Amino acid sequence: MKKVKYVYIFGGGKADGDRTMKELLGGKGANLAEMSRTGLPVPPGLTITTEACDHYYKNKKQWPEGLEQQIRDGIAFQEEQMGAKLGDPGNPLLLSVRSGAAASMPGMMDTVLNLGLNDTVVEGLAEKTGNERFAFDSYRRFIDMFGGVVMGVSHDHFEEAMEKLKSEKGVEADTDLNAADLRELVDRFKAIYRKATGFMFPSDPMEQLRYAINAVFGSWNADRAVKYRQINKITGLIGTAVNIQAMVFGNMGDTSGSGVLFTRNPSTGENKLYGEYLKNAQGEDVVAGIRTPKDISELKNDMPDVYDKLVKYTQKLEKAYADMQDIEFTIQEEMLFILQTRNGKRTGAAALKIAVDFVDEGLVNEEVAVNRLVSTGQLDQLLHPQFDEKAIKDKKAIGTGLPASPGAAVGRVYFTPQEAEEAHLTGEKVILARIETSPDDVGGMHAAEGILTSRGGMTSHAAVVARGWGKPCVVGCADIVINYKTKSMTDGKQTIKQGDWVSINGTTGEVILGQLPLTPPEMSDDFLKFMKWVDKFRTMKVRTNADRGEDARKAREFGAEGIGLCRTEHMFFEGERIVAVRRMIMSNEEKDRRAALSKLLPYQKEDFKEIYEALDGLPVTIRLLDPPLHEFLPHDEKDIKALAEQLGMSFEKVKSRVSVLSEANPMLGHRGCRLGITFPEITEMQTRAIIEAAIEVQEKGTKVFPEIMVPLIGSAEEFEDQKAVIKSTAEEVFKETGKKVKYLIGTMIEVPRAALTADTIAPLTDFFSFGTNDLTQMTFGFSRDDIGKFLPDYLEKKILLQDPFQTLDQNGVGKLVSEAVRLAKKVKPDIKLGICGEHGGDPDSIAFCYKQGLNYVSCSPFRVPIARLAAAQSAIRGKA
Amino acid sequence: MKKVKYVYIFGGGKADGDRTMKELLGGKGANLAEMSRTGLPVPPGLTITTEACDHYYKNKKQWPEGLEQQIRDGIAFQEEQMGAKLGDPGNPLLLSVRSGAAASMPGMMDTVLNLGLNDTVVEGLAEKTGNERFAFDSYRRFIDMFGGVVMGVSHDHFEEAMEKLKSEKGVEADTDLNAADLRELVDRFKAIYRKATGFMFPSDPMEQLRYAINAVFGSWNADRAVKYRQINKITGLIGTAVNIQAMVFGNMGDTSGSGVLFTRNPSTGENKLYGEYLKNAQGEDVVAGIRTPKDISELKNDMPDVYDKLVKYTQKLEKAYADMQDIEFTIQEEMLFILQTRNGKRTGAAALKIAVDFVDEGLVNEEVAVNRLVSTGQLDQLLHPQFDEKAIKDKKAIGTGLPASPGAAVGRVYFTPQEAEEAHLTGEKVILARIETSPDDVGGMHAAEGILTSRGGMTSHAAVVARGWGKPCVVGCADIVINYKTKSMTDGKQTIKQGDWVSINGTTGEVILGQLPLTPPEMSDDFLKFMKWVDKFRTMKVRTNADRGEDARKAREFGAEGIGLCRTEHMFFEGERIVAVRRMIMSNEEKDRRAALSKLLPYQKEDFKEIYEALDGLPVTIRLLDPPLHEFLPHDEKDIKALAEQLGMSFEKVKSRVSVLSEANPMLGHRGCRLGITFPEITEMQTRAIIEAAIEVQEKGTKVFPEIMVPLIGSAEEFEDQKAVIKSTAEEVFKETGKKVKYLIGTMIEVPRAALTADTIAPLTDFFSFGTNDLTQMTFGFSRDDIGKFLPDYLEKKILLQDPFQTLDQNGVGKLVSEAVRLAKKVKPDIKLGICGEHGGDPDSIAFCYKQGLNYVSCSPFRVPIARLAAAQSAIRGKA
Repeated sequence: MKKVKYVYIFGGGKADGDRTMKELLGGKGANLAEMSRTGLPVPPGLTITTEACDHYYKNKKQWPEGLEQQIRDGIAFQEEQMGAKLGDPGNPLLLSVRSGAAASMPGMMDTVLNLGLNDTVVEGLAEKTGNERFAFDSYRRFIDMFGGVVMGVSHDHFEEAMEKLKSEKGVEADTDLNAADLRELVDRFKAIYRKATGFMFPSDPMEQLRYAINAVFGSWNADRAVKYRQINKITGLIGTAVNIQAMVFGNMGDTSGSGVLFTRNPSTGENKLYGEYLKNAQGEDVVAGIRTPKDISELKNDMPDVYDKLVKYTQKLEKAYADMQDIEFTIQEEMLFILQTRNGKRTGAAALKIAVDFVDEGLVNEEVAVNRLVSTGQLDQLLHPQFDEKAIKDKKAIGTGLPASPGAAVGRVYFTPQEAEEAHLTGEKVILARIETSPDDVGGMHAAEGILTSRGGMTSHAAVVARGWGKPCVVGCADIVINYKTKSMTDGKQTIKQGDWVSINGTTGEVILGQLPLTPPEMSDDFLKFMKWVDKFRTMKVRTNADRGEDARKAREFGAEGIGLCRTEHMFFEGERIVAVRRMIMSNEEKDRRAALSKLLPYQKEDFKEIYEALDGLPVTIRLLDPPLHEFLPHDEKDIKALAEQLGMSFEKVKSRVSVLSEANPMLGHRGCRLGITFPEITEMQTRAIIEAAIEVQEKGTKVFPEIMVPLIGSAEEFEDQKAVIKSTAEEVFKETGKKVKYLIGTMIEVPRAALTADTIAPLTDFFSFGTNDLTQMTFGFSRDDIGKFLPDYLEKKILLQDPFQTLDQNGVGKLVSEAVRLAKKVKPDIKLGICGEHGGDPDSIAFCYKQGLNYVSCSPFRVPIARLAAAQSAIRGKA
Repeated sequence: MKKVKYVYIFGGGKADGDRTMKELLGGKGANLAEMSRTGLPVPPGLTITTEACDHYYKNKKQWPEGLEQQIRDGIAFQEEQMGAKLGDPGNPLLLSVRSGAAASMPGMMDTVLNLGLNDTVVEGLAEKTGNERFAFDSYRRFIDMFGGVVMGVSHDHFEEAMEKLKSEKGVEADTDLNAADLRELVDRFKAIYRKATGFMFPSDPMEQLRYAINAVFGSWNADRAVKYRQINKITGLIGTAVNIQAMVFGNMGDTSGSGVLFTRNPSTGENKLYGEYLKNAQGEDVVAGIRTPKDISELKNDMPDVYDKLVKYTQKLEKAYADMQDIEFTIQEEMLFILQTRNGKRTGAAALKIAVDFVDEGLVNEEVAVNRLVSTGQLDQLLHPQFDEKAIKDKKAIGTGLPASPGAAVGRVYFTPQEAEEAHLTGEKVILARIETSPDDVGGMHAAEGILTSRGGMTSHAAVVARGWGKPCVVGCADIVINYKTKSMTDGKQTIKQGDWVSINGTTGEVILGQLPLTPPEMSDDFLKFMKWVDKFRTMKVRTNADRGEDARKAREFGAEGIGLCRTEHMFFEGERIVAVRRMIMSNEEKDRRAALSKLLPYQKEDFKEIYEALDGLPVTIRLLDPPLHEFLPHDEKDIKALAEQLGMSFEKVKSRVSVLSEANPMLGHRGCRLGITFPEITEMQTRAIIEAAIEVQEKGTKVFPEIMVPLIGSAEEFEDQKAVIKSTAEEVFKETGKKVKYLIGTMIEVPRAALTADTIAPLTDFFSFGTNDLTQMTFGFSRDDIGKFLPDYLEKKILLQDPFQTLDQNGVGKLVSEAVRLAKKVKPDIKLGICGEHGGDPDSIAFCYKQGLNYVSCSPFRVPIARLAAAQSAIRGKA
């Protein structure tokens, strides 16, 4: 019979296993083997295979033949490596024991540390470290851990004994107990152990080890672990591996020590070790802050050889992991051990510099840099001004709302859009604070540095508009009560009056009193270099949602390849236009509506011309009027009176019309294509403006590609109706002008029914653009404006893991998207597909869009670089 | 070469063809052959096959060899049958020529009548009928028809000539022209024909016939017909057939005549011929009402042989068509011809009697009676009071709204629910008229005989509640303006004041002034007998939507087999309960909410006990609280003040809470299970009431099967949360009482996401109940309350063919239903499935539910018999 290998050793720059052997060695074991194999000085150890565990269960919990001997051989290897011996008080080897299956699995056995301690070994440890207190503290912890984790003794018993001792000694903190106290505690712990288990605490290290290994095997079939495997459908695994590793000590005198470091500066990305260490100390001492650690550079003087090794290893690790590393190390009597290495957290600025440097240094290629070294979140940080970190440190927020649009803004607070605008015109920096915003407020919002609302969610009007402009915005800040009458707001303690300085942080949601200093964003050379790489790998186009020439130009600078959503309704609010809009709405007769619309036509044309010129050569998707008409009407008595006078109508008549037009559920009401169907003259005017503007700028040499988009389509019949109006209007313009322009007609897919019947709609359209905001509203039955009432509970109870308006719900809404794509491609394989909901700027959602085979995503201008990166990462990951 | 048969004759009780030969003879030809073959005396004729048409097109519009001769032979057969001759002035045979393809196809050639007339034949016809005017009127019509239909001469020319002649003669009506005038007109028509075609009007009947046949062939490829075939994807047809049939004349003296009859009385169903006839008259004379026709029974005296034959044929026809027939006949010189027979229209009462009699007489079996002889619409008529038909005849409606709940109601009009209730208590009959209704109004609505609203659609609050009670209701009557202040309404002409008598017809939507007499409904023996047959064939259960014991008892009388939807929120409005409800809503603290809820508990328990007792032995599905809480709050200042006093809170505090709770889109807001998730104490209270009530009535010997239904579920996680609350509460009650009761926990499927993820929800539930009202709202993105603004345009433009809230949209919403069924059955094959939306009472939707394999439909009590019939018809049709 062939001898089965149940134990794989690692350490000293070699290993029996490697990273491919997860099934046999578990994830942790395979990883330790790999690290050691690549020459990393990890503390030596051994891994007992999952096959041993399998045998254990198949043979009435007996170890397979040879296992014990193989373990002993493995321990001998560790003893040799460490120059120490298990159970030898003169030079003791201590061990850690951990479980480790092929898949990570909560509910399995925790770590047991310091295995190997007993009444004699502890004295040796005390002597060796010159620290009796440390030795006995380690010992009492070991008894507690072994008793609890291995033998199932309740931790409470140990805890009670500790409390009792402290009260006897008249001290408060655990750390107030001295070495003698801890000796006493060890005795009491052993008594507890004996009482609870009926056995003496085992003093033979090999016996301790046997118990611990069996406990790991046993934990494989613990209730929690079994349930976890069921729920997560983890099948096909035969058992858990057991990792037994030598403990190392940094507190064995002045030739020992511990430290943590980043391989590069995590704030700036500078290529220089960044970290700290303590001589004669364990790792926890460095973090605890009782002694002040030294800068890592001082290690060079203290232990030059160790330092050189450390530098060598950090370079090796950066290369091996192809990333900047965050490393924990321990020096035991001049022997350097890397205890842990992981990719280091860093700021956006650091991420960008590290990515560019890594490529320049040949550590990674451009693809890896794009795929892994800069996250979309990090890129986001670079695109907005931030508060100076030092300045903000001791400032307390007076309230925290939702971080609706990132970046920091500082200004004097105003509570009405008019006053905000006026103050802005006098050169003031303004923060507009509103309970909620409405389209009426856009003038003041645009004038403001930042926007604050006390109500509303991440996709409220304020949030959406602010993100569109890249303007910092905090919404739903319920800590603050705004009072329009007194022109002030309060956090319940202090009153902030109009004109007071306020700083808001749209990245964190914080609202802070006073005028904090800002650090501006910049599009550095590194940024531009990196974004060039990004575009090399990207296959999906990125467009922008922009309603004004100015936004369109900004988006183009950020790399937008067209407009995916130009909302025409915003154009209806400015200046005199609103009067014509309201006159149209108030008309009962088609001819009066036409007269009012004809006044709007020149404005719309000018808007479109500006946008076409900004996008010269790129497509522009223009959505026809979408919101219900009542959104354009005033609602309070004063404004209604003013409107009545303006229109020469009676107050009652205007008021009654406002009330007739109001709706119980405007989101599901008379809006979108339903407007164009009942009032075709609106569609006609808008089409005329789109086509006439296109012809005029085309004449001047601008390349125009208008794409007319019909909103809120739910059936092929609706689209057919509007398509006919659009086509005949365009033909009319062509005939009148004697010129032609190419244009597309497509539809939003934002009503569930449209997704379900996409195969009937697709043959009629040139493109689909998924409006996932509304699609999410209707698929969930969640009103964006009202979700704030229950979303916090949903997130807290984990009924939802994230706000579905921020990250596309792939299981529900996503199913409709993929069904629509499937149905549409079946009948029209070359249909152009895009997304223009808020999700178009969300990296996870962009990855989903990539998988669905969409041609482009469209997002607000300031999200364009982020979308470009997300699209590139999706493409790179999609190749694998 | 084998001689091809291009002509198939029929008549005299025989025929070359039969009904299976549609492809060759067209639909009309095959049908005429079949009628003749079964012995029916149809006027003799011939059918030219579609193959002849095919040949015609394949051979440069040449007739196939032998066709002309076969037609001549066929004409000879007709001449023999009729004892007349084509072109013989002494005894002329006249012909009708009609197209007739295998599929009905608008756009093909119309009928040409009276073919065979010319200048000499017309004189013979005049003599034969003794009616010169008739003869020349027929002739001028023939020239007009032949010119227009066959030769393409514009009908306008003939019309102008007619008008000119009338003006010359100084008469107004066509009928004022005498025989001499018509002779003149014939000359002028011939001149027009000659001018337009360049040819003389053909006087040779065979030539006329040849032209007519070619015109029929030609119409096969007319633009309209080709387009119709394209649109309707009619393919594989080779051409049209041509039907040439002898004309018969009832105006050839006293041995001739014409009549129309029903084989049974269409008002009452009595088994007795019902109809009238005129001696010496054509069919149109009977209908025109110039002469007063005789009762059909007098034919027995006038022409006993003919009468006997007619009776014999009517019996034959009833048997052949297995239905009561509506027959047109003509007697030409004592020869009886059946010109047309079709199933006769009848009232609901007649339909029921005829169905029962047909079975009793052995004419049809029960299955046919159930499947075909009574429609759901006819049954509906029997379940509501109706206006006396005579009384209503000359009453003009002052307005017409949507027929929201069928039946007629008469009462004095009141405009507030309070006053309606008070008037009702004094014994008055009341009509409640409101702009719209809200849950606040239910007291007054219940007190009223009928409900009228000036706003809202077929599924508005008023409509839904009224249908639930079987109360007549007219909604959205925009003709009427209601003024609460002046307590009056107006149709723009007259003012109707509070207390005036008003009659409303919920079957037609009419609103009539005054007090019209009513005929009450009755559940006759025939009804009960018929419904027993219905239940023999039905496989799907029928439950009812009922919130009160009284409604539940009514529904049970109507045959409901359980409650499919018991809405608990209606129980929250009555009397003192609303105070506790409002107190709960106003509480910010859980403990205050619990205190308020504990006051509601006994009320809810009592409600449930009453319902359980009414449903003894049948299941009761109880839906947990569904509407947003703000629906329970007052909205105007006065009521808010009153509430503040009642609760001992400040006005501002109450007002601010009302405003905080208000929502932009309540339909998509904080409602349904979202309430139970944020306020678990509501679910707990309701569960407790349901379970405690069940245990208490069970103790008294009532059999209870409560089914707790969680509304507005969109994800498995939501359901899991609520299920846990329900289960633990039920267990608590079991422990407290020491008793148990069986209960189910299920969910509504009314959110699109729930349908899309049904496979994750189904494993957790006992049942699904499709809430197709909300599902329709969210799938279309249509708010029921607001759809009125665009639905009329949608219906007019045929963007929608019907209101999707009335008949389930099978292509969109239905796709979600069938997807949910598929996903659910995949993981839980035995899951119980039902529907409780308004569609549960709609026959088309019920047929759809049957196809989906649902276990039951649930509808309002008064729709239960209709649903039973629809379910039976679905099952019978499903077998085929």
